[in-house]
Amino acid sequence: MTKITEQEKQGFNRVLYNRRDIRSHFLPDIVDETLLLDILTAAHHAPSVGFSQPWNFIVIKDDNVKKKVFEAFSEANLEAKKMFSGERQEQYQTLKLQGILDAPINICITCDRSRGGEVVLGKTHQPDMDLYSTVCAVQNLWLAARAENIGVGWVSIIECDTLSDILKLPDQVVPVAYLCIGHVSSFPEIPELESKQWEVREQLKKLIYTDEWGSKAS
Amino acid sequence: MTKITEQEKQGFNRVLYNRRDIRSHFLPDIVDETLLLDILTAAHHAPSVGFSQPWNFIVIKDDNVKKKVFEAFSEANLEAKKMFSGERQEQYQTLKLQGILDAPINICITCDRSRGGEVVLGKTHQPDMDLYSTVCAVQNLWLAARAENIGVGWVSIIECDTLSDILKLPDQVVPVAYLCIGHVSSFPEIPELESKQWEVREQLKKLIYTDEWGSKAS
Repeated sequence: MTKITEQEKQGFNRVLYNRRDIRSHFLPDIVDETLLLDILTAAHHAPSVGFSQPWNFIVIKDDNVKKKVFEAFSEANLEAKKMFSGERQEQYQTLKLQGILDAPINICITCDRSRGGEVVLGKTHQPDMDLYSTVCAVQNLWLAARAENIGVGWVSIIECDTLSDILKLPDQVVPVAYLCIGHVSSFPEIPELESKQWEVREQLKKLIYTDEWGSKAS
Repeated sequence: MTKITEQEKQGFNRVLYNRRDIRSHFLPDIVDETLLLDILTAAHHAPSVGFSQPWNFIVIKDDNVKKKVFEAFSEANLEAKKMFSGERQEQYQTLKLQGILDAPINICITCDRSRGGEVVLGKTHQPDMDLYSTVCAVQNLWLAARAENIGVGWVSIIECDTLSDILKLPDQVVPVAYLCIGHVSSFPEIPELESKQWEVREQLKKLIYTDEWGSKAS
């Protein structure tokens, strides 16, 4: 059995607790191709339902594609802003929520809903397990990038249909995550939405129940 | 800036590449409470849309609850078996796909679809981002458990409605992942569905496109 040592665990935890969603700190420096392949390999080793590996990775470096995505973000972000009111709206406007044009690399991680055929082990009663598998790949990539001191930001303020059009996705393929990736000037000490007092971190113990919803450990 | 060292990265990678979905290797040994809290803390430090932290963790040790979940799995698994035919069906029957009763701890990670209120930053155009955030917490937990040499298996062959009934989830809360957790006799060298030739691992390079779907790097 491959036993993880105390030292290895500490290395792992350093990566996990220092991962951040990066929007403002991207540097234009080129990301080495070998390094990029390493973090995609980590993503590809995520768990997947019935070992179906439903993901694809669209690596975007073309400025024209990035610009189209940025336009789609801008349009959605204007709509989003209007959904907040008062002080919250004012604060929303001050937040930088993406690094599409700043980051040298963007990656769209997609899920092919038809991967593995009509009947996929483990997907028979929970049809969205392929989407969830794809998210596991996103999180693997995010952490593996952090281990390489590379920043990642997830842009979700964008219409999926528009993104599908821009990236020419076939009907059975959906975009799960649009990521901005690159070297960074720094990793913030705490999440930006926490430091800017948009939200506070919940106390973990309040989120844990025992045996059923609402039941606290005695 | 918190720079991850080469040695820390190696520790991280050892964890990432040796994570497995555990079904057959659980030991009955008690999982230390501090250790359990450590892996839940790792889950709680996953990224979440608008920092909404939509997850809860239902820690299940009660045998009666486990038995109900096992019955729900058994019923679904019988239906699942019938969806395969011929040799595939025969092979399906030989696979052990869960460790509900073997693992000392089961954890259901849920997503509260109402967490963060009516309008959540980043969820305005992709309403399922809260589910995806919850999956990021699952993957953090899975890896953090592996760093502690603790096994995790994700059981998805079960009706979500039945699971919600058993765990008394409120209407706005959905079960995202039902996990079996415990010490293990060993971690398999490669994924079980790969070693048992249920599926093969895809070549990563076939899954990577450049700038749009279907376009390969020159």
